[in-house]
Amino acid sequence: MTSAPSNFVLNRRHLLGIEGLSPSEITGLLDLAEEFVTLNRQVEKKRTSLRGRTQINLFFEASTRTQSSFELAGKRLGADVMNMSVAQSSIKKGETLIDTALTLNAMHPDILIMRHAASGAVELLAKKVDCSVVNAGDGTHEHPTQALLDALTIRRNKGRIERLTVAICGDILHSRVARSNIILLNAMQARVRAVGPSTLLPAEAERLGVEVHRDMKTGLKDADIVMMLRLQRERMNGSFVPSVQEYFHFFGLDDVKLRYAKPDALVMHPGPMNRGVEISTSVADGAQSLIREQVEMGVAVRMAVLEALARNLPNA
Amino acid sequence: MTSAPSNFVLNRRHLLGIEGLSPSEITGLLDLAEEFVTLNRQVEKKRTSLRGRTQINLFFEASTRTQSSFELAGKRLGADVMNMSVAQSSIKKGETLIDTALTLNAMHPDILIMRHAASGAVELLAKKVDCSVVNAGDGTHEHPTQALLDALTIRRNKGRIERLTVAICGDILHSRVARSNIILLNAMQARVRAVGPSTLLPAEAERLGVEVHRDMKTGLKDADIVMMLRLQRERMNGSFVPSVQEYFHFFGLDDVKLRYAKPDALVMHPGPMNRGVEISTSVADGAQSLIREQVEMGVAVRMAVLEALARNLPNA
Amino acid sequence: MTSAPSNFVLNRRHLLGIEGLSPSEITGLLDLAEEFVTLNRQVEKKRTSLRGRTQINLFFEASTRTQSSFELAGKRLGADVMNMSVAQSSIKKGETLIDTALTLNAMHPDILIMRHAASGAVELLAKKVDCSVVNAGDGTHEHPTQALLDALTIRRNKGRIERLTVAICGDILHSRVARSNIILLNAMQARVRAVGPSTLLPAEAERLGVEVHRDMKTGLKDADIVMMLRLQRERMNGSFVPSVQEYFHFFGLDDVKLRYAKPDALVMHPGPMNRGVEISTSVADGAQSLIREQVEMGVAVRMAVLEALARNLPNA
Repeated sequence: MTSAPSNFVLNRRHLLGIEGLSPSEITGLLDLAEEFVTLNRQVEKKRTSLRGRTQINLFFEASTRTQSSFELAGKRLGADVMNMSVAQSSIKKGETLIDTALTLNAMHPDILIMRHAASGAVELLAKKVDCSVVNAGDGTHEHPTQALLDALTIRRNKGRIERLTVAICGDILHSRVARSNIILLNAMQARVRAVGPSTLLPAEAERLGVEVHRDMKTGLKDADIVMMLRLQRERMNGSFVPSVQEYFHFFGLDDVKLRYAKPDALVMHPGPMNRGVEISTSVADGAQSLIREQVEMGVAVRMAVLEALARNLPNA
Repeated sequence: MTSAPSNFVLNRRHLLGIEGLSPSEITGLLDLAEEFVTLNRQVEKKRTSLRGRTQINLFFEASTRTQSSFELAGKRLGADVMNMSVAQSSIKKGETLIDTALTLNAMHPDILIMRHAASGAVELLAKKVDCSVVNAGDGTHEHPTQALLDALTIRRNKGRIERLTVAICGDILHSRVARSNIILLNAMQARVRAVGPSTLLPAEAERLGVEVHRDMKTGLKDADIVMMLRLQRERMNGSFVPSVQEYFHFFGLDDVKLRYAKPDALVMHPGPMNRGVEISTSVADGAQSLIREQVEMGVAVRMAVLEALARNLPNA
Repeated sequence: MTSAPSNFVLNRRHLLGIEGLSPSEITGLLDLAEEFVTLNRQVEKKRTSLRGRTQINLFFEASTRTQSSFELAGKRLGADVMNMSVAQSSIKKGETLIDTALTLNAMHPDILIMRHAASGAVELLAKKVDCSVVNAGDGTHEHPTQALLDALTIRRNKGRIERLTVAICGDILHSRVARSNIILLNAMQARVRAVGPSTLLPAEAERLGVEVHRDMKTGLKDADIVMMLRLQRERMNGSFVPSVQEYFHFFGLDDVKLRYAKPDALVMHPGPMNRGVEISTSVADGAQSLIREQVEMGVAVRMAVLEALARNLPNA
């Protein structure tokens, strides 16, 4: 690994997706994140690089994990962090997304972290505001910090990303996590496979340059990384999945299926997990699992993103 | 404008309303707020004047906009800010308002920001606690920081407040925003008009010294400022308003009605807006609109209020 | 009182209960808390001893009072404090308690404050994480910081704890407050009585070394301290209590019953109070009441616990 470039700057105003990031931008962010991994393991975790700056977390979809991760990242960098409780907000009073955005913008935040159920909503908003915007997940479109933290986790454990075989398994059709990961892994020269039932594989998979597999045996063969996706509860009944039991039987990762992959394959999951649905407890908690490390990398990657964007702000 | 008095002190313990504030107190607050407008446009927005002090935001009515504005104001001044989520609170367990207040008081906050659905509730509470209390809206009574931010917005754009003609339009009967604005504008020698349907005009309007108009044409004639009020959803059906369409036809501000006012008239709205109900999109987003600037002034005015009150605290 | 040992360290990783704490540990915490009582009455309330550390408040049961108290305590010590809104959390998505805990743990908090409806849940979680855990109430088991703040309140007003007669009254069966208090008061050589209807007295009362009384007259006789408990709303109807009126008649503390105790007896209640159910307004607000002081002591005691645990963290 190259030495971490402490002065890496993201020469962009926003981070809306992985699409469009160059390999050297990705590498710069991961290298910077490595510094924060070290910092976060120390007793004194505080930096002052965002002191005097305002970060607003605007989550239209609830998410304990991602919001907490961004909140801690901002606070540890010294920013004033404000969470907007959208459930109690002006949205209920009939205000439009744009009005909400412009209202926040008028409060002069420096960075806005936004999650929204509609694909493209974050980009729409980014065009209306003066501050930096980070996409924390928009519909089925992108979730760039998740892909970055997954890449950091892979790189720390395998020493590289290029030429690894990564099998992404499950509900790829509806997953912004899968989409951002596919784009990043392609950009970094990994070999990506999409594994799942036909009903959950996107038609665009081949356009994205991924190998498509409809069963776990061929899909996991020689995989270095097995990346499981969360099965959304609303998919569990209905036309996508016949039943939870059947889904687990064919596509849930257990010790038997994990043996299809390389002996040193590593297992990932973006969380929160449905144990017994897409992953067994013994795999989730087993020696090959990186699931906890992903969460740790999440805080570090978000600190890197915030710092790299802040360095690009005027007068920084 | 006089030069900003950096050392302005509000020689009061509380800010419960505009009523009772002298013109020089109002001017002092607006001048101090000007300093914070400048600060908030800088990259480093942080002051330390409230460091070590505790601000509690106690909102019995949800309000994204006002609560966020106070939260950012306190944080940028260096205070420890705590939001009380009243929906999840002891109120549900049957505790009285006074018990909640006395409990908070025992935690030694320095400043309590409070919003409540009942007129007078904030004043009642202020009598029970040792700290400073700021009224963030109580029933149909007062919302003093809204009137101050409106005044600051007007003064910045018109250079003065006195002798301006300000038409306040809509649901004046139920509006604490209207009430605080009327009191402030009267105190500052503006000419105030109340414009709306008879069902939404208060009987006390004339006592408050405002001209009453029941149609927009005469109400807006020669106005320098057109201040629209939010039509509460609960008024939209029932005895107050026949229908949303009819309300907009007669009292909604659109380009046609705006031409009744002076050519350089400016438009204000406290937000959140009901586009197509009390204001058209083209006016809300048009060149004469100050609506975004009002939000920006909101943070600055609240910083001024917090700082001016804090300077009056013992041992400050 | 002995002089406050500014350098007191709690040589434990967690504070899960009063059970197992030695009298000298209890005294050390109370002495340290005295320092924070003084600090909290000053204008500048801020310390830096937890600067750079992360405190997470993880409340599975809502509690304005306790959560606020821990939040202020952490912020005044300089920690980055994050509240986890569990109602909106991954729990809803089917994640287990352990997964939630391990996820938080991976974010490298230093101190986790946890409340949970299940007895033992906090201890279970403490075994899974690397950080310090403070029990903020688990089921009917323990609520150690409440017992410590009660002890501090008693000691400040009576000059000592040993040999005082403390009558704990009401729903002792379901009360973690009662349980922690009984253990602490026993450890500190007070004489403890449990007073209440048979249906609300635990079978283990005698094992815990308390005198059991089924009426207030004998229970309060010669008491130095009358500690009322909150009657949970869910007990008010059904098999535990015949009716609120009857409960108040027999076990509610009013001026008449208070005269059974010593003339200088002091009254306590952990809040929030049901006025007219377990306590009358005239007693709650009367000269013998310490109820507000308990809240004040709560912040100080929690600062002492956080600081004493933090001093025991590696590299502190």
